[in-house]
Amino acid sequence: MTLLSDLLQSIGDRMRSKPTAQASLQPAADRLASGCAELMRKGGEASRIAVAEQALAAYAELDDEGKARFFRMLLEDFSADPAAVRSAYAEWETARTEAALEDLFKAVEPKRQSLLRMLNHPTGGTLQLVRMRQDLLRLMRGAPELAPLDSDFSHLLSSWFNRGFLVMRRIDWNSPAAILEKIVAYEAVHEIKDWNDLRRRLEPSDRRCYGFFHPATGDEPLIFVEVALCKGIPGTIGPLLTGSSDAGGEAADTAVFYSISNCQPGLKGVSFGNFLIKQVVRNLSQELPQIRTFVTLSPAPGFAPWLAGQEDAGAQELAAELAAEGWRQDAELREALAPEVQTWAARYFVHGKTGAGLPADPVARFHLGNGASAHRTNWPADLAEGALQRAHGLMINYLYELDQIEARHEAFASEGTVACGPAVRRALRSGKGPGA
Amino acid sequence: MTLLSDLLQSIGDRMRSKPTAQASLQPAADRLASGCAELMRKGGEASRIAVAEQALAAYAELDDEGKARFFRMLLEDFSADPAAVRSAYAEWETARTEAALEDLFKAVEPKRQSLLRMLNHPTGGTLQLVRMRQDLLRLMRGAPELAPLDSDFSHLLSSWFNRGFLVMRRIDWNSPAAILEKIVAYEAVHEIKDWNDLRRRLEPSDRRCYGFFHPATGDEPLIFVEVALCKGIPGTIGPLLTGSSDAGGEAADTAVFYSISNCQPGLKGVSFGNFLIKQVVRNLSQELPQIRTFVTLSPAPGFAPWLAGQEDAGAQELAAELAAEGWRQDAELREALAPEVQTWAARYFVHGKTGAGLPADPVARFHLGNGASAHRTNWPADLAEGALQRAHGLMINYLYELDQIEARHEAFASEGTVACGPAVRRALRSGKGPGA
Amino acid sequence: MTLLSDLLQSIGDRMRSKPTAQASLQPAADRLASGCAELMRKGGEASRIAVAEQALAAYAELDDEGKARFFRMLLEDFSADPAAVRSAYAEWETARTEAALEDLFKAVEPKRQSLLRMLNHPTGGTLQLVRMRQDLLRLMRGAPELAPLDSDFSHLLSSWFNRGFLVMRRIDWNSPAAILEKIVAYEAVHEIKDWNDLRRRLEPSDRRCYGFFHPATGDEPLIFVEVALCKGIPGTIGPLLTGSSDAGGEAADTAVFYSISNCQPGLKGVSFGNFLIKQVVRNLSQELPQIRTFVTLSPAPGFAPWLAGQEDAGAQELAAELAAEGWRQDAELREALAPEVQTWAARYFVHGKTGAGLPADPVARFHLGNGASAHRTNWPADLAEGALQRAHGLMINYLYELDQIEARHEAFASEGTVACGPAVRRALRSGKGPGA
Amino acid sequence: MTLLSDLLQSIGDRMRSKPTAQASLQPAADRLASGCAELMRKGGEASRIAVAEQALAAYAELDDEGKARFFRMLLEDFSADPAAVRSAYAEWETARTEAALEDLFKAVEPKRQSLLRMLNHPTGGTLQLVRMRQDLLRLMRGAPELAPLDSDFSHLLSSWFNRGFLVMRRIDWNSPAAILEKIVAYEAVHEIKDWNDLRRRLEPSDRRCYGFFHPATGDEPLIFVEVALCKGIPGTIGPLLTGSSDAGGEAADTAVFYSISNCQPGLKGVSFGNFLIKQVVRNLSQELPQIRTFVTLSPAPGFAPWLAGQEDAGAQELAAELAAEGWRQDAELREALAPEVQTWAARYFVHGKTGAGLPADPVARFHLGNGASAHRTNWPADLAEGALQRAHGLMINYLYELDQIEARHEAFASEGTVACGPAVRRALRSGKGPGA
Repeated sequence: MTLLSDLLQSIGDRMRSKPTAQASLQPAADRLASGCAELMRKGGEASRIAVAEQALAAYAELDDEGKARFFRMLLEDFSADPAAVRSAYAEWETARTEAALEDLFKAVEPKRQSLLRMLNHPTGGTLQLVRMRQDLLRLMRGAPELAPLDSDFSHLLSSWFNRGFLVMRRIDWNSPAAILEKIVAYEAVHEIKDWNDLRRRLEPSDRRCYGFFHPATGDEPLIFVEVALCKGIPGTIGPLLTGSSDAGGEAADTAVFYSISNCQPGLKGVSFGNFLIKQVVRNLSQELPQIRTFVTLSPAPGFAPWLAGQEDAGAQELAAELAAEGWRQDAELREALAPEVQTWAARYFVHGKTGAGLPADPVARFHLGNGASAHRTNWPADLAEGALQRAHGLMINYLYELDQIEARHEAFASEGTVACGPAVRRALRSGKGPGA
Repeated sequence: MTLLSDLLQSIGDRMRSKPTAQASLQPAADRLASGCAELMRKGGEASRIAVAEQALAAYAELDDEGKARFFRMLLEDFSADPAAVRSAYAEWETARTEAALEDLFKAVEPKRQSLLRMLNHPTGGTLQLVRMRQDLLRLMRGAPELAPLDSDFSHLLSSWFNRGFLVMRRIDWNSPAAILEKIVAYEAVHEIKDWNDLRRRLEPSDRRCYGFFHPATGDEPLIFVEVALCKGIPGTIGPLLTGSSDAGGEAADTAVFYSISNCQPGLKGVSFGNFLIKQVVRNLSQELPQIRTFVTLSPAPGFAPWLAGQEDAGAQELAAELAAEGWRQDAELREALAPEVQTWAARYFVHGKTGAGLPADPVARFHLGNGASAHRTNWPADLAEGALQRAHGLMINYLYELDQIEARHEAFASEGTVACGPAVRRALRSGKGPGA
Repeated sequence: MTLLSDLLQSIGDRMRSKPTAQASLQPAADRLASGCAELMRKGGEASRIAVAEQALAAYAELDDEGKARFFRMLLEDFSADPAAVRSAYAEWETARTEAALEDLFKAVEPKRQSLLRMLNHPTGGTLQLVRMRQDLLRLMRGAPELAPLDSDFSHLLSSWFNRGFLVMRRIDWNSPAAILEKIVAYEAVHEIKDWNDLRRRLEPSDRRCYGFFHPATGDEPLIFVEVALCKGIPGTIGPLLTGSSDAGGEAADTAVFYSISNCQPGLKGVSFGNFLIKQVVRNLSQELPQIRTFVTLSPAPGFAPWLAGQEDAGAQELAAELAAEGWRQDAELREALAPEVQTWAARYFVHGKTGAGLPADPVARFHLGNGASAHRTNWPADLAEGALQRAHGLMINYLYELDQIEARHEAFASEGTVACGPAVRRALRSGKGPGA
Repeated sequence: MTLLSDLLQSIGDRMRSKPTAQASLQPAADRLASGCAELMRKGGEASRIAVAEQALAAYAELDDEGKARFFRMLLEDFSADPAAVRSAYAEWETARTEAALEDLFKAVEPKRQSLLRMLNHPTGGTLQLVRMRQDLLRLMRGAPELAPLDSDFSHLLSSWFNRGFLVMRRIDWNSPAAILEKIVAYEAVHEIKDWNDLRRRLEPSDRRCYGFFHPATGDEPLIFVEVALCKGIPGTIGPLLTGSSDAGGEAADTAVFYSISNCQPGLKGVSFGNFLIKQVVRNLSQELPQIRTFVTLSPAPGFAPWLAGQEDAGAQELAAELAAEGWRQDAELREALAPEVQTWAARYFVHGKTGAGLPADPVARFHLGNGASAHRTNWPADLAEGALQRAHGLMINYLYELDQIEARHEAFASEGTVACGPAVRRALRSGKGPGA
């Protein structure tokens, strides 16, 4: 018996003993609906936490259809009161005061926001709401009309997961297994094969791992980054993952962020990565003053399709050659291909754009948006099957230079300028043809 | 040098070294204003935490006039965009969809809310915002036009200090001195004279003290309650404060909440007391199953003025007698007066109302609103000077009965019904005259 | 660079910079010997911790031959001073006072005890001494003349690992991975295959694991016990290990100690198991009052050789039958054999003795010595290869009954009486022949 | 009801329910004696912890007479067996082996050591044994025949409070009040007046306080040192105690140990101070690299009587002048007296010896023995009444120079050489007369 159910029994049940007994016979959807109604009722304050607990428990019993129905109910039955909105608006138009604006703000706020705040009261409620939004995002794919509801979740979660409430914790071999197994599960970039692989990645001599946690979600990581301490900037991922890179330890002068994983799909759009990288840079600068260079070794997941989509004949030819796999075993061929790969890689990162004018590469959007530069492309750098398919084995180092971060961020944000390292610039210049 | 300034030096300054150097020569008000502008600027994300830190530091340098000017600036320059509100409203009136409502909600939300969320990013920001609202509440007394701004603070702080984020901690002699000195400072009901007095109130044999804390404000208590474990329901405060009450310890069957203090004026209206009492009841029920009765021994701060304001001749006479102080030394006189005091006390709690129909007594509003009953009035119960002036020494026990809390709360909330204990009912009946 | 070496460099080296530089060129054996001499020298107090650290580091570099030589040096060069012993003895014989006895005690105490106490000063020294004794025990097998030295180690370690200094900690999935991997490594009874297997054994619903730790050896477990919460007393180990036992959780009324592992060979003879089991019984009694029965499911590692060694023809036959393995696939045969196995098993536990008159079974010696009873033998109970070879698959439940522990312990200690459960008594009676 | 008694009730009592009930009617002395007998009895292992608990509880009820009788019993009834000693000695004389020595060692060890080790088993036992020795040391003053017993206590406590088991903790305003009140109580050099005074001494900007703790005695400090961070070496204690010294904080280059207090009289002779000072030097060197000088500001408690005891006429005159108190208000007089005070102070520290040839000043013995130098005498430095009476207001700085500590310690230990600072050397030379 959990503490929760224990408390419910000793207290909640005494309060509402009969209704509870009946309730459990009701379908979960009905219990959830009546719980929500109860929470919004004036006068129900005394047992709100217990009611919220039961509502969350009922939600957890629902299948996707039930969840979708619940989300629709939130949209339709817990909206704002149109008459109140209209009247507050009229008042504001007349008075044009800040007081009138505040009244309008209150009238316009959908009631479901207040409901979600009450569902957050019980212990564990926050994580359940994060998971609820994860359900919503999934179900929205087939039901776009639910999108406005996501706006409410997003609004609340952004406020609750404000940077000021996040706690950065180092994750190492002394961390609870309960956290470590989540690291294994959530690692999204370079799969962790087993506990030995994990231990290698937490080796204190030349590795670091940091994550953000929120007090209300306890040991559940929100995002984490894996760092290798190296001598110089590495150009291939293999030695980092196998731990066979010989430099490191005391000789290390470079911190390499080689894997960043978001753990909670339900917190999509609540951005942590930017804060995390900068906090890690701060901490490492303090702990290890000999570390002077902060750089990533990042995948380039859009390179292969982008290259294949270029009209240039040289690009077409290169794409075919790279897809043909012969180069994997043929060192000479690799050497022959390398200059052209570097050129097209440079073009990809600097000129490849989405329709909206942003970098075509999603990882590039993140790091360039944080104020990093596209420092050096590396090929071949990752021979894992996925990396070969998505990027022909290409990787890139993004460089975080503290005294450049802001200027680069601004140039990128305002004019889309991609800061480049010398090697990337050289590759750009060296290329002939339309892509240059 | 604090860690914060250290980090700023090692990192932030490298980023913005020249502007910072100039900035510190500017008046704080200018630095604050330009910091706020910087935070709202698109593209300034890269150094937002450092900018927010500097803005908060600049705020802390302001005097009241400067603060008032800053608050006015928040009202005027960080409002919503009227054109955007109007256009979103028109859209909503046409479409009447939830999507349009969400757009309207975003248009109506004052920009200062977003600004305050960014000021919350730095470590320690949350507490500084709580203190900022404390300033606002103080300055609002002379500047009621600032009230709409308080609505924004209230909205954000209510969301951030959601019950789900609060942590209850027991406070005892093993707590850090840094917390204990705050308990001494914040005790608002029965002053703690010195550390010996405090130790007595934390004696593990028959005392408990619990507080709510928020992860982002660390060791700063939000509210705390002092509890004495007694045999039976006590009728006078003296022995509880001096620790001379002999029962307690293993024989105790009653937990007496004899002091509840809110610690943060800046969190006014964000209610914790209700949750705290119920959580303490739960914890004590588990820890000490022999404790069956949960009761307060509470002041009656409005009794003296209320009694003096009654038109009834008997009340006038009693008020005069009680004000005359003779009874303080005269046991016989006390005995003679007691029945009438009890009668008028019962009338006060049951029938004394504010213009809005709520109980005249502010403490009664809190406990009756929580679902407690007015169990027993006690006279004379507190001979401290303040208690004599405000209540002629009267105190009252509010009783928390778990299986009655919800029904009583609802009857009180919907119809203003005051649940009474048998002694109070008897006193009501025994009284003659118009008050009966 | 570790903190230790860091401190040595920043401080110790400043003290003894030149000697240190030379020292590291010396062979480890020489450095160790001169370190020991330095520690015993009058006047060397100022840098003893650093010297002890270096001596321990030098020891760690030695191979077995070097270690054996070091142990011999401890025996020969760090003994007591015979002249001082003689003179103190003469004094005592004359005076016959307690003061004279204390002087004699000091004269007789080998100097190596004082040396070992000084080697314990540095951080981590305790664990290194435990490991040193582990080496000694190993090397003693080929060098019995070292035995007196073990007496000194044993004397000191028994004092340092006094029950009063041990801390019991629950081990679960929230424990650091650094502890958990040691649990996997040290499990000596039923091998833990992988982290999934481990997680199953730590499942909070129906499993517990507790270990003793010592503050000076940190996260290094000394001994740990694995417990399953069951409905009734289990007779086979399989379901406990695979986690397929269905009862457990709330219905559980029995705690089964199914694996106890000593982790530190260097602490041989410093007994913890007795204390650990009793402490676990206390804790579980408090945490889960519905658990009423405390029992083991233990191996019988000496059964097979004992049975094979019985002269009785029935025993010989049974031993042959059990060794033939046919019964493993033949349920009928098992049923036919069972009564006789039970009879001989009962005889084994009750009458099987070593030359010294103790139970032949080493696990029986431990539990019967703790005051448990031989409650029920189970066959076949463990089909793992080792258990088949050593015990033909036999296991036994030892029962810990709090109100019987002391009487049983005493009867066992003074007269060798083995307390039996009803099933064992029945099996004893049912048997015919010489063993009965 | 404590956890302990709770456990006893729930478990121990079940084991020994009737004897316990009777036992509590027996006088404490009898219960203690029979508890000790029970602990030593072969076969009593099963309930030893509970028996030890009861014995300790019985001891705590005894008055001094009862305690003295108990100590005598330990001496007489728990000694070694003379026959066994004799036989083991004879064996050793014959065999002259280490094995025989070990047997002799075991025979000679008084049985009370084994008894005390068993009394250490229960939780809290260690502290109770420390307090028991404190009683013993007190009672020994009137009963010197108990001294051999102290040798056993000293032997065991030295082993248990080995440096390797001590934990250094920083004490500050975040420490539990339960620790801080002990700091107030145990401060033996410069009394802490109240909590405000304490807070001043823990101010993080320019103060530090560190203590040694032992895991088995929990929050009970063993020894602590108070440190002020200053600019330069201070010559008067006043500003350090009132906190009015202006330098400190970031400008500080000197750590001043101005108060060291042993907290446990029962650990007399188990030396911690040496280790503590050196550990603090290490920690501060790491935390605050700008701190280069480590120095004390120490009392000179034997100066006044020593000066009064000098036969030299100048000394006699000076002693009279200093005792006359006129100089306290007369700056000119002070200036006139100062050179002579400095001269005699230098002689006191350098030449003043006990009969055993050690420094006459007990504080000097400690610091010079640790390898510090007598750096500078200061007069007048402490105008507190006690300091005036014992030392005419004189204080001294002992200087800890890491690269000199060992050489100084050795010169002091082997030849009694007192290392001096230049000012002390100058004062020695400047003096005329026999003391020079």
